[in-house]
Amino acid sequence: MTAKMTPADIEAFLHAEFPQAFRTGGDISIESADGRSCRMRQRFNERMLRPGGTVSGPTLMALADFAMYVVLLSAIGPVGLAVTTNLNINFLRKGAAGADVLAEARILKLGKRLAVGEVTLLSGESPDPIAHVTATYSIPNA
Amino acid sequence: MTAKMTPADIEAFLHAEFPQAFRTGGDISIESADGRSCRMRQRFNERMLRPGGTVSGPTLMALADFAMYVVLLSAIGPVGLAVTTNLNINFLRKGAAGADVLAEARILKLGKRLAVGEVTLLSGESPDPIAHVTATYSIPNA
Amino acid sequence: MTAKMTPADIEAFLHAEFPQAFRTGGDISIESADGRSCRMRQRFNERMLRPGGTVSGPTLMALADFAMYVVLLSAIGPVGLAVTTNLNINFLRKGAAGADVLAEARILKLGKRLAVGEVTLLSGESPDPIAHVTATYSIPNA
Amino acid sequence: MTAKMTPADIEAFLHAEFPQAFRTGGDISIESADGRSCRMRQRFNERMLRPGGTVSGPTLMALADFAMYVVLLSAIGPVGLAVTTNLNINFLRKGAAGADVLAEARILKLGKRLAVGEVTLLSGESPDPIAHVTATYSIPNA
Repeated sequence: MTAKMTPADIEAFLHAEFPQAFRTGGDISIESADGRSCRMRQRFNERMLRPGGTVSGPTLMALADFAMYVVLLSAIGPVGLAVTTNLNINFLRKGAAGADVLAEARILKLGKRLAVGEVTLLSGESPDPIAHVTATYSIPNA
Repeated sequence: MTAKMTPADIEAFLHAEFPQAFRTGGDISIESADGRSCRMRQRFNERMLRPGGTVSGPTLMALADFAMYVVLLSAIGPVGLAVTTNLNINFLRKGAAGADVLAEARILKLGKRLAVGEVTLLSGESPDPIAHVTATYSIPNA
Repeated sequence: MTAKMTPADIEAFLHAEFPQAFRTGGDISIESADGRSCRMRQRFNERMLRPGGTVSGPTLMALADFAMYVVLLSAIGPVGLAVTTNLNINFLRKGAAGADVLAEARILKLGKRLAVGEVTLLSGESPDPIAHVTATYSIPNA
Repeated sequence: MTAKMTPADIEAFLHAEFPQAFRTGGDISIESADGRSCRMRQRFNERMLRPGGTVSGPTLMALADFAMYVVLLSAIGPVGLAVTTNLNINFLRKGAAGADVLAEARILKLGKRLAVGEVTLLSGESPDPIAHVTATYSIPNA
């Protein structure tokens, strides 16, 4: 599958359509997106920590959801109205304070009405995932 | 089951142990908690909206996760180290801009090592849920 | 919401369209179905046990999936092609050997394209659920 | 990680401890298991079909659950009492009538109390998954 939008296209679209998506000041960047998978990086900041100094669950859920939207945009082009219908997250390990969080999203199925994908969340350079997400997006009618 | 902590106990515990939990300036309050269920209210603010003016998914996931923790505290007393291991959310309807978000959490099983619950998320006065969550917490050894 | 099909209608439809659904010899019956919820009973048989003498996970998953389909039929009428897209199950307690398994399904959202529901699984007369399921069905275009 | 049991060890253990697990007459075989992942094959038989001639959901859920147990045995050795606590399945495509079903399971986290894994389900030679599962097992105390 060829990407319908490059990472730069996607960032431009998101900045124009959803300025809030980047309201955290550029903390999140799209490292790659090819129509089947994408890789996102959220730079470490103190706001992503929960008590105890580990990365909070809501931070991970929000990043995973965003990564799924980005890989979907790369697959189907600029569709502003796709919405998440289901998200399942397993929290596996603590994310280290000070480390960026990476999200690697992959499309499992791209249907006409639903897209399903999985997202692996990583902390810094460690190969062991800190969380794993599956999510479903509903795609509006063309 | 009798509650081990009242809503006031829980708020005091959370303020002392996890000041960040209320960093949003008192937006979230515990309306009730009885050892089996709880009801939380997140007052409307613009920050909870996503593009299009509806309540964002991460807002709902974070509130549901918090409500599960509050009902667990009311059931087992002050346990700072319980962690979410799994959270599954189905997004059902759009939450209205301007309306508070309510979370009604209920414990389905309270075991020695795991607690499982469900959370219904509501928008303002509407009886139709905007999202439904099931979540599992791992309870540290006594 | 008024039911589009009664329990007897649904059983007749299932017997005609999906004889396999009842191939276990009438073990499963529809106790009620009203367009919003339904209650199913699977009579105890040895085949539903796993090693250790408790009710097997696949038995519970299959019954929950079937209950969701039945409540959906009662809500929207005879639609043969609805398919499950997501099912999440939390196993809570052991189901007793010798006891029937009950499934109480409830629709959380009935949309044009997707229906979401939850199912509580019970063992015999015990009020404590042995499992809890949420499931999504995709509804074919009219 | 080194496997604690080979596929032959696991089959012998399962036959001795859980004869029911293979009651379908050897339809399911362990093609590989190495302490981190495993691959299972369920030979096609008519009983795995649902109306419409596609592989049934319960067949896929049962095989995925079994594959998670097998990879766990290969990782931690003969532990008869591990139980599934959560299983989430996304149904992606129809499995073809006549084709074997393959399950490729992979451990995402092996903790002292919980193991989390994912399972990709495939139909015959097709590379496109027909379902994707994440599951959590609770490991009894040593």
